[in-house]
Amino acid sequence: MDLTATTADLAAAATEVARLLPTRVLDPVLAGLVLRADGTGVELAGSDRERAVRLHRPATTHTDGAALVPAKPFADTLRGLDDPRVRLVVEGSRLAIRTTTARFALPLLDLATHPGVPGLPPKAGEIPSDVLEAALVPVASATSKDDVLPIFTGIRMTGSGDRVELIATDRYRMAYATVPWSPEGSLNVLAPAALMADVSRLPQHTVVTIHADEDRIALSWPGGSVSTALLAAPFPDERARTLLEAIIDSTVVVEADALAGAVRRATPYSGPHGSVTLHVEDSELRVRGSDPQTGESEESVKATTEGNRVTKTFQARYLADALKAFSGRRVELRIQDGLRSTVLTAPAADDGIELKYLVVPLRTVH
Amino acid sequence: MDLTATTADLAAAATEVARLLPTRVLDPVLAGLVLRADGTGVELAGSDRERAVRLHRPATTHTDGAALVPAKPFADTLRGLDDPRVRLVVEGSRLAIRTTTARFALPLLDLATHPGVPGLPPKAGEIPSDVLEAALVPVASATSKDDVLPIFTGIRMTGSGDRVELIATDRYRMAYATVPWSPEGSLNVLAPAALMADVSRLPQHTVVTIHADEDRIALSWPGGSVSTALLAAPFPDERARTLLEAIIDSTVVVEADALAGAVRRATPYSGPHGSVTLHVEDSELRVRGSDPQTGESEESVKATTEGNRVTKTFQARYLADALKAFSGRRVELRIQDGLRSTVLTAPAADDGIELKYLVVPLRTVH
Repeated sequence: MDLTATTADLAAAATEVARLLPTRVLDPVLAGLVLRADGTGVELAGSDRERAVRLHRPATTHTDGAALVPAKPFADTLRGLDDPRVRLVVEGSRLAIRTTTARFALPLLDLATHPGVPGLPPKAGEIPSDVLEAALVPVASATSKDDVLPIFTGIRMTGSGDRVELIATDRYRMAYATVPWSPEGSLNVLAPAALMADVSRLPQHTVVTIHADEDRIALSWPGGSVSTALLAAPFPDERARTLLEAIIDSTVVVEADALAGAVRRATPYSGPHGSVTLHVEDSELRVRGSDPQTGESEESVKATTEGNRVTKTFQARYLADALKAFSGRRVELRIQDGLRSTVLTAPAADDGIELKYLVVPLRTVH
Repeated sequence: MDLTATTADLAAAATEVARLLPTRVLDPVLAGLVLRADGTGVELAGSDRERAVRLHRPATTHTDGAALVPAKPFADTLRGLDDPRVRLVVEGSRLAIRTTTARFALPLLDLATHPGVPGLPPKAGEIPSDVLEAALVPVASATSKDDVLPIFTGIRMTGSGDRVELIATDRYRMAYATVPWSPEGSLNVLAPAALMADVSRLPQHTVVTIHADEDRIALSWPGGSVSTALLAAPFPDERARTLLEAIIDSTVVVEADALAGAVRRATPYSGPHGSVTLHVEDSELRVRGSDPQTGESEESVKATTEGNRVTKTFQARYLADALKAFSGRRVELRIQDGLRSTVLTAPAADDGIELKYLVVPLRTVH
């Protein structure tokens, strides 16, 4: 293998692959990056069995070939170079990284013992990367960070005609979004929230193809692909759908950012349970905090209110996550009776994303 | 106490004071921020006994007075406000922070039981803040991060006529700088490296007055002051001075950033001891790394060399710290025989700072 390529291009791609791979493994082959050069350029690929990535970059290939190298030092070395072009040459048992003034020689790993990088499952549909990210960010915020119960760490993705539905819940809140897409097959998966990290690194303004089968979900775009093993757990679809149907006791329409600001300012006063209380008044929402040590806070936010004058207490951080999903817009809070969840929603935005965010209120002692 | 002030001004000052104070203390009074308002404005002050800070800010005082409040929630609340102006009023046992739409009430702490914020020691001299910082940054980089032996964590500061000498060492390297100042008294202290954190937060383009006595060093400027308890240990002044006198075996002049880049690129190949080797050649310096797992690296850096063609091995990170101190300039490496330290130096810069950085080579097995 012998090729010349743009250093910055290769460095960025190698860093992406290295980020995915484990660094402390008994068998260094598992932390290896697969290089494959031919007339079309060079492919950098890697897999930790759960996740996999393949990136294709332009290169001038002098000799076709493939090699397996330790991913981290390969990426570190490329990133440190000042020269605009770099040459990669297999020299005996080494991959030499050459510039005009320097030579770095990495030991080759045994490509024959590498488990291989999984291929792509069948196509499910296409969606602009920006729209996918805009819908996934708020939904992923409702997943549990604790992986004892895997279904609460996953994002349920279902193709339904010309829209994809995304749902996630950690039991205390639930986010539900539907987004337009161009279907080409079926999509019915529980994807790990780690998928988000991949989506946030996609090139912007690209159309992404979603691929899925019973084991994996993959995203591909011109120049590369990432794939992830699915969560095996069954998701409570029916239960989730029931929760979305609210019996409204009181409705409040408010600027999401204004309410988020008031919640943020009340957070130092949110006490041992991290809770803030919303009081629905005639043309305002009153945000109150109280902490035995820090003191008390009270702030008014202008609002359009309808229905009963109710009082609800929430985890400040759950409310903050929910409001963030509606940033820059007016949000409608549909408050239900008792301990039934409050539904935050807004008319669909220009990108066609419809979003509902449910937050369960706290039981309070009066 | 009752005053109105600019929110951003107060928030920044409260944050500075809060950063200094301990947050987890048995007695909340020790985590208190002292507010004092009169016709000249408002003073925010705090002390953890070792360090102390006083900041004076403009304010319209409606009623003179003083109050002690928990520093962190006070700073958090001010930072979160959107209103440009804020009012602070003592109301019974609370300090109320008021804006047009909100009221936050912090419990007052007992000012009578606060140990007080130490005053300033006598003046030692004056120095522009930028010059002080430019000299302290490289010197502080040579201090030990391990505080088992306090003298190696300190910065020795000695006034000597119209210059201040700064020295620090962790035994494996030593930095020595002299800077011009305007003396007004004597300066002969071992300051903790934590002083650096204060200096980096000073307003830029200000003249700082250094104050010192046997117990404390303080820096004051228009609008505030910080002070720190000194380290009690005696510093080995004579020994340090002896080390500065090099018996030169070989001299290399090189662009500091070019050599730093080569050292950085060799670092992934620096092996279990994190070491890189410099070979002095006819008109270049060759930087080599070798690691049983990562592989080998070799890079040439253009240099003007004089004297013997020697080879020295260094801790890569010590060499990197030393070269960083000469960034943007040409640096002279005065290499001594055997395990005697290599002295890095350069002609005094425009700001009048003279700098020497010593790095002890590693013993190598050939």
